[in-house]
Amino acid sequence: MSTSLIILAAGKGTRMNSELPKVLHPIAGDPMLVHAMAAGAMLEPVHTVVVAGHGAAEVTAAAHAYDETARVVVQSEQLGTAHAVAQARDALADFNGTAIVLYGDTPFVSPDTLEQMMEAGKTADVVVLGFEAADPGRYGRLVVEGASLERIIEYKDATEDERAITLCNSGVIACNAALLFDLIDAVGNQNAAGEYYLTDIIGLARARGLTAAAVTCDEAETLGVNSRAQLAQAEAAFQSRARAILMEDGVTLQAPDTVYLARDTVIGRDAVIEPNVVFGPGVTVESGAHIRAFSHLEGCHVSQGAIVGPYARLRPGTELEENARVGNFVEVKNAVIAEGAKVNHLSYIGDAFVGAGANIGAGTITCNYDGVMKHHTHIGARAFIGSNTMLVAPVHIGDGAMTGSGSVITSDVEPDALALARAPQVEKPGMARKLFEMLKAKKAKQQRGS
Amino acid sequence: MSTSLIILAAGKGTRMNSELPKVLHPIAGDPMLVHAMAAGAMLEPVHTVVVAGHGAAEVTAAAHAYDETARVVVQSEQLGTAHAVAQARDALADFNGTAIVLYGDTPFVSPDTLEQMMEAGKTADVVVLGFEAADPGRYGRLVVEGASLERIIEYKDATEDERAITLCNSGVIACNAALLFDLIDAVGNQNAAGEYYLTDIIGLARARGLTAAAVTCDEAETLGVNSRAQLAQAEAAFQSRARAILMEDGVTLQAPDTVYLARDTVIGRDAVIEPNVVFGPGVTVESGAHIRAFSHLEGCHVSQGAIVGPYARLRPGTELEENARVGNFVEVKNAVIAEGAKVNHLSYIGDAFVGAGANIGAGTITCNYDGVMKHHTHIGARAFIGSNTMLVAPVHIGDGAMTGSGSVITSDVEPDALALARAPQVEKPGMARKLFEMLKAKKAKQQRGS
Amino acid sequence: MSTSLIILAAGKGTRMNSELPKVLHPIAGDPMLVHAMAAGAMLEPVHTVVVAGHGAAEVTAAAHAYDETARVVVQSEQLGTAHAVAQARDALADFNGTAIVLYGDTPFVSPDTLEQMMEAGKTADVVVLGFEAADPGRYGRLVVEGASLERIIEYKDATEDERAITLCNSGVIACNAALLFDLIDAVGNQNAAGEYYLTDIIGLARARGLTAAAVTCDEAETLGVNSRAQLAQAEAAFQSRARAILMEDGVTLQAPDTVYLARDTVIGRDAVIEPNVVFGPGVTVESGAHIRAFSHLEGCHVSQGAIVGPYARLRPGTELEENARVGNFVEVKNAVIAEGAKVNHLSYIGDAFVGAGANIGAGTITCNYDGVMKHHTHIGARAFIGSNTMLVAPVHIGDGAMTGSGSVITSDVEPDALALARAPQVEKPGMARKLFEMLKAKKAKQQRGS
Repeated sequence: MSTSLIILAAGKGTRMNSELPKVLHPIAGDPMLVHAMAAGAMLEPVHTVVVAGHGAAEVTAAAHAYDETARVVVQSEQLGTAHAVAQARDALADFNGTAIVLYGDTPFVSPDTLEQMMEAGKTADVVVLGFEAADPGRYGRLVVEGASLERIIEYKDATEDERAITLCNSGVIACNAALLFDLIDAVGNQNAAGEYYLTDIIGLARARGLTAAAVTCDEAETLGVNSRAQLAQAEAAFQSRARAILMEDGVTLQAPDTVYLARDTVIGRDAVIEPNVVFGPGVTVESGAHIRAFSHLEGCHVSQGAIVGPYARLRPGTELEENARVGNFVEVKNAVIAEGAKVNHLSYIGDAFVGAGANIGAGTITCNYDGVMKHHTHIGARAFIGSNTMLVAPVHIGDGAMTGSGSVITSDVEPDALALARAPQVEKPGMARKLFEMLKAKKAKQQRGS
Repeated sequence: MSTSLIILAAGKGTRMNSELPKVLHPIAGDPMLVHAMAAGAMLEPVHTVVVAGHGAAEVTAAAHAYDETARVVVQSEQLGTAHAVAQARDALADFNGTAIVLYGDTPFVSPDTLEQMMEAGKTADVVVLGFEAADPGRYGRLVVEGASLERIIEYKDATEDERAITLCNSGVIACNAALLFDLIDAVGNQNAAGEYYLTDIIGLARARGLTAAAVTCDEAETLGVNSRAQLAQAEAAFQSRARAILMEDGVTLQAPDTVYLARDTVIGRDAVIEPNVVFGPGVTVESGAHIRAFSHLEGCHVSQGAIVGPYARLRPGTELEENARVGNFVEVKNAVIAEGAKVNHLSYIGDAFVGAGANIGAGTITCNYDGVMKHHTHIGARAFIGSNTMLVAPVHIGDGAMTGSGSVITSDVEPDALALARAPQVEKPGMARKLFEMLKAKKAKQQRGS
Repeated sequence: MSTSLIILAAGKGTRMNSELPKVLHPIAGDPMLVHAMAAGAMLEPVHTVVVAGHGAAEVTAAAHAYDETARVVVQSEQLGTAHAVAQARDALADFNGTAIVLYGDTPFVSPDTLEQMMEAGKTADVVVLGFEAADPGRYGRLVVEGASLERIIEYKDATEDERAITLCNSGVIACNAALLFDLIDAVGNQNAAGEYYLTDIIGLARARGLTAAAVTCDEAETLGVNSRAQLAQAEAAFQSRARAILMEDGVTLQAPDTVYLARDTVIGRDAVIEPNVVFGPGVTVESGAHIRAFSHLEGCHVSQGAIVGPYARLRPGTELEENARVGNFVEVKNAVIAEGAKVNHLSYIGDAFVGAGANIGAGTITCNYDGVMKHHTHIGARAFIGSNTMLVAPVHIGDGAMTGSGSVITSDVEPDALALARAPQVEKPGMARKLFEMLKAKKAKQQRGS
């Protein structure tokens, strides 16, 4: 059965108190919208339609950054969920499968749950996602008889008995696309808010003698975000689950509460992650690698046996090969650190290749920016870069070459050669004492003068 | 109605197990005493009298650091709260308004609550601050009839019925100053501890036919600190409230539990604060600025669009103008980074001005200290400072000037000029291989020898 | 009464999902096995026998790293706890005192509890350690009458009344060694798992008319670790207790939840530890020292009045004398920083001595590694090392000497002398503007070309 997604992402999110459209507030490094899109993407949808409204340009950009084939339609007035879904009608005009309606501010619905909805859709005309609420409060209640979803009752219209129902409405719906738009046509806005509610299609379907069914998921999957406090809770919930999964998979997290993961972080078995490590998007850490405390990783790959940190920053495009070592106060960007190479202290390695077994001395900097363009540095295998070497790119250091500490290297260095750029040491006996005395006298004079 | 404050700050705090007087233990970067003084300061008091005792010199210094007009009186023996208040008599001899008695180890009483006490004081002679206790335990109970505070009962003297009262005594009192001292004269010390209790003035006032009233606040406001564990709890409570307020105000805190705020931290709407950021006193972050992970800020101002960190340290006197950028492993102190200027990597910028659009290369250091005095560095607009440039202050780099990487700049550089201080690169073919072989042979010989 | 320890450490820990043997997973920087060994070591045991199995070579190494006199025996098949204990028979053949059976995956049994067991052993033949379980679940129950332990009932064999017992079996046992092995001989494996259970010796002892007693400890002491989630909980429990003890001892922890301690961390009264500090093994911080945020300490000693961080990394062999100062982005390894000396910014000090009152400029690096060997740097008292000085070891800087900033120092410097290695500054008027224009033109050309 083919699927398409309709993702509602038009709301302003007034309670977020933000210029940023609500669905673009990130969790684990990605906009909430992307979480919803990614869950739906597991169904391999034919079309993904994002209904934007507030901040439509930014929402469009974010949707396309994740999936450039996504179709974005704009709901220029926010007249309710049924009205929002109706905006997707043209985009799905040629589509004859199941449409699933998701919400850009409900980031945690799982692919498994969506598959269960697709499965239930084989025998029911409309499928609604419900959840057993710990505190049902004012949620709409799902009235189920056997396999059939009889109706959805709004809290304010519910009897005492109906209010005792704990199976609540998440708003997520699966339905044949043509039928969906047909039912929506019949939805009215005769209610206090004057809005068109998607939920009303259940009653309309039942009235036509069609069938409806409910699929139940964990309440955590239907968590919606309406304020920054809820966003922080959603982030915490994501992190907590992601850490638990890593631990089950055999990753060592000494202080799991202090490790921040991105949506797509991949970490191998028996990798060790020390306290206070932050993972941005796009990081893979292989089995047996070791990430020490206070490290920050984004868009990088850390191979088996590599050791990172403490206080290492790996920026996008960093590739650490096996047993490579990046130590404290070191920044690496768009660079390969080949097998067994070491960059242990206080260095900046950007736009570079560091050969196998090379040793990069403390304070080394690849001067990759000339004020206008970026250039590449190549350091050969087994090279020994002396402390505080400036490598003015573009520059090529041969295999087994060496640079003297404090050298500014502007020309290529042949393999096995030693390159130096250094002024001779001169000593002025007694001069330090004289200087100190002079400076102290000057200071004293200034203080008397003031 | 004019107000004066009497803040009791004489206690030793034996359970703190510390040389530091209890009221000077900090919460959110400021001594508890300062929190109490700051809450009272919102009433614009005529006089603020701090009653010091243990560590009186340090307490005096801390009080004056916050408010140099504060009057500090010394209670040389600790004979009870009434005795402590009595020490303020001379300091308030010429004052004819309401005195409010606060406690230096009860940092969270809110200005709103104090204003309610002032208001209640318009119709009652003595006003006591009470709180509804979740667990009243051994607190004194406030017996209230209608608007009138009838009496305060100590737990040990209370009947079963009285112990069922949950409105407890915080000890905070508001009363006409002259009346307060008059009532205190009548307080005796005929009790187990042999101390003079301030609480006794309620009974004395009532016995004279005067009126008393209770104002009720949230229990969290009356949290007192007697041990380091309680201090840590108070710190956590402060942080938790302050983070929640920031989120309501539209600040993005990805992991609020990892952000540490000072008493006076100001952060604008839609500013983004990543995990693990520490704010010391005196920080303002404007709307839309972005503070990345592992950053540490004190006494600085970060303008709109500026990006800080990760791993950036902004020390007092730092001013980042709009869209300025301070990156990883960079320390800035007493310096302006003007609009759009960048200090991205591994640098120390102290006592300096960095002009608009300037680019400071990795490893740049302003050598501001000559061993005796500090000097200033000026970097002009659009200057390009090559990596690892040493700027030996005092020094002036002109607008649009450039320095070669690895240069030690001791003289001023004209606008648009290029300054270099660099030894020529020399290459010794095959020498690296020979050196490695020689060193390995030497090591092998040493190992044989040992 | 002499004691020997039998520590069971043979299990694989399948649920850990790890190549590392379960007992070697660390808590607070040390393998769980070492925690158990260290608790037992307080009894000054005659012998410590570790029963290894899975990963026996690594377990042996870890046991010997903590106590080189420990005897390790190998249980080649895991046939139950009684079978495991039996492997210690030969190692204790000549021992005629009390054997205590501990578990390498139960790291928190306290020395006090073990001493209580020894005491109870004076009047009972077998002593079992029990705990009052908050949720007894499927633990074995201890049936006690007066001072006598009547029997241990497995949950599955227990009556309703017996299941109501909350005193549960920890598995820790103390018994005369000869008697222990004698009883074990009689243990059978007629049970569902086909294993030999140590617990069975209680019934066997009672059947012979011997006496048994139970000692009760806090449930937290008997916490066992079977999964990484439980390991993380055990780590959290350790940290929480250790932080509380430090606070009671008068240490200031501003945000205790963010401070990570090792098993052996020692911190003096009124030392201040800011948020986000990680202590590895072997650290002592004296009274009144101050460790600022984001610092990382291992194997070092910080004296009174010293200030460390923020962002300071002290590696093994670091000794900070009184009032020494190590600031941001500084790494110190195997070095003494003498009284009042300062290393404030962006430096690497390794294999070095920094004399009293010396000032080390920003960006200073001791070039201690020549590619083959490590060498020592000596910096004299009151020396002033200019910013970005490279000290190429071995090298000796005399007392009161000074180095010019940006110098590479390869030869020793006499006391009070000034050493410089610096190229003269050259200025090329207008050249910066020309360079920028040239580079921009080049870039524009490339872009047209692409």
